[in-house]
Amino acid sequence: MLILGPTEDLEEEQEENAQARPNEKDLGIIGLGPAGLTAALYASRSGVSVVQVGLDYGGQMGLAMEIENYPGYEMISGIELADKMKAQAEKFGTKIVFGEVSTIDILENGRFHIKSDMGDFVVKALILATGGRHRELGVPGEKEFVGRGMSYCATCDAAFFKNKTVIVAGSGDAAATGTLALSDVGAKRIYWISRSDYLKCEKIYIERAKNRDNITILYNKQITEIKGTNTIEEVVFNDGNSLKVDGVFAEIGSIPNVELAQALGVELEEGLIKIDDECRTNVTGIFAAGDVTSKINNPLMRQITTSTGLGTVAALSAIEYLQGLKIKG
Amino acid sequence: MLILGPTEDLEEEQEENAQARPNEKDLGIIGLGPAGLTAALYASRSGVSVVQVGLDYGGQMGLAMEIENYPGYEMISGIELADKMKAQAEKFGTKIVFGEVSTIDILENGRFHIKSDMGDFVVKALILATGGRHRELGVPGEKEFVGRGMSYCATCDAAFFKNKTVIVAGSGDAAATGTLALSDVGAKRIYWISRSDYLKCEKIYIERAKNRDNITILYNKQITEIKGTNTIEEVVFNDGNSLKVDGVFAEIGSIPNVELAQALGVELEEGLIKIDDECRTNVTGIFAAGDVTSKINNPLMRQITTSTGLGTVAALSAIEYLQGLKIKG
Repeated sequence: MLILGPTEDLEEEQEENAQARPNEKDLGIIGLGPAGLTAALYASRSGVSVVQVGLDYGGQMGLAMEIENYPGYEMISGIELADKMKAQAEKFGTKIVFGEVSTIDILENGRFHIKSDMGDFVVKALILATGGRHRELGVPGEKEFVGRGMSYCATCDAAFFKNKTVIVAGSGDAAATGTLALSDVGAKRIYWISRSDYLKCEKIYIERAKNRDNITILYNKQITEIKGTNTIEEVVFNDGNSLKVDGVFAEIGSIPNVELAQALGVELEEGLIKIDDECRTNVTGIFAAGDVTSKINNPLMRQITTSTGLGTVAALSAIEYLQGLKIKG
Repeated sequence: MLILGPTEDLEEEQEENAQARPNEKDLGIIGLGPAGLTAALYASRSGVSVVQVGLDYGGQMGLAMEIENYPGYEMISGIELADKMKAQAEKFGTKIVFGEVSTIDILENGRFHIKSDMGDFVVKALILATGGRHRELGVPGEKEFVGRGMSYCATCDAAFFKNKTVIVAGSGDAAATGTLALSDVGAKRIYWISRSDYLKCEKIYIERAKNRDNITILYNKQITEIKGTNTIEEVVFNDGNSLKVDGVFAEIGSIPNVELAQALGVELEEGLIKIDDECRTNVTGIFAAGDVTSKINNPLMRQITTSTGLGTVAALSAIEYLQGLKIKG
């Protein structure tokens, strides 16, 4: 491993070899979720020097207490899986920096200057794997019960609620498919609530839900509090009513972390980073992977497996790009 | 688990519920590689009944002795990883059948009749995850040294050949990028051989290779024998010459297993199953995932991670399709 010298004058750096000066690397990866960690593993294992910066350790995977749909592990926590992926990337020399990236500038020589509160880095290529964050209900009890009944992903967690009573908040397609997933998996009763007097998902989903014995649709309901002891026991609504439930699924959308991408002039598509089949963005030398990309515009498909797949593709494309620079340099 | 009754008369089967008759399932998956096993995990975990049929246990992954680029495992064999994925899918009820599929017929009611030497199955939806097979050199010693110096994937195995002498056979892009990957990773010497007097890869790769000190390009060379004791020690050429090497990379293409798909009328693109972003083929109810699909038309990107990603997407699409059938039924 290289020891980073924080006092290096990066702007004056002109040398070709990334190994020559301590703050330079071939590849910078932003984000510490499964897409970024996989990209780091593939790139560093191929001989590329990598710095990976972020504060979001494990990404949204890191929030999961129990994962049983990552192929290879019957049951693992998100943090444990992140630890394994991190160790694997570090084994091949990836430098992981727990820091907040403030800005990334494109230098005159085409390189990228990453500024973070834990130091600056200059890289020849960049992978944006900044992920997204679930939109929260913003009610008392919500944060407290994450992983203990409070979930933001029915595809991930439905199987844990067989024979249980749950509530799904949200009126879009994600809420609809989440409700149906909970029904398929044998939840005892699913209350699907909308805060307005309609559901904005595709009509076919509503029809399907109405056909299921274990689904009850409730309109004009908004959760105002989540109560329980060790796990969730009850939700309270804006109308003063309450329901006994074992789980709450908030399927009210997610917010992609595209701020850095936008500042770099990276093109978006429906709010997500637009990439081609090889994870290239419109900006030369910038690649993207994971939930922040347009390849995963169906929220259902935001899974660890799809992120590691895209992280792999982004790394292989970045490696190819870096090989091209060597010949030009 | 259901017990299958091989004497059922499948053609007369009319009932809606897949659980009603033993040889019926919601979803049939063909192929036992990581794409198929991941699809089985996702589908069965969602409450869909699944039968998975194939002889290719672990797919091409199953041939790897040491895998160190699957996120989550620092080092694991392909069979060990397949065992874990299989156990995980079976935990949720997937029935795995080690059998050879002879034909798949589309029945009048839109279902699929899978005929295999280990029994017949009728399913409502189908995922083809039949993968591909590496083209072999077909020379003495080749099979003997698979996993002990003989490799078909430089992206996967290059890292094991740091400071070693290797030979790369092939003249296309996969051979070119494999050669460069071995150079990047610090192989001592890479002999890149073409059986003709030219290389058919992109010119840029040849230029890059010529710029590397550790790459030697040899034309009109064909391996006729691979020799060694425990591991590879020497290759013999058609011109009678030989070279001492530690490893042989055959990067001479792969053959996608598309025979069943073709018989079903599934559209191909450049010899691979054409799928959209949600892994749908042109035939209603048939999905595809993994190396056999057009989504992985760059051979470099045929990795376990990309297969598990596509397996996930295919399963989620098939689940959605099956939910739609319930309402129609």
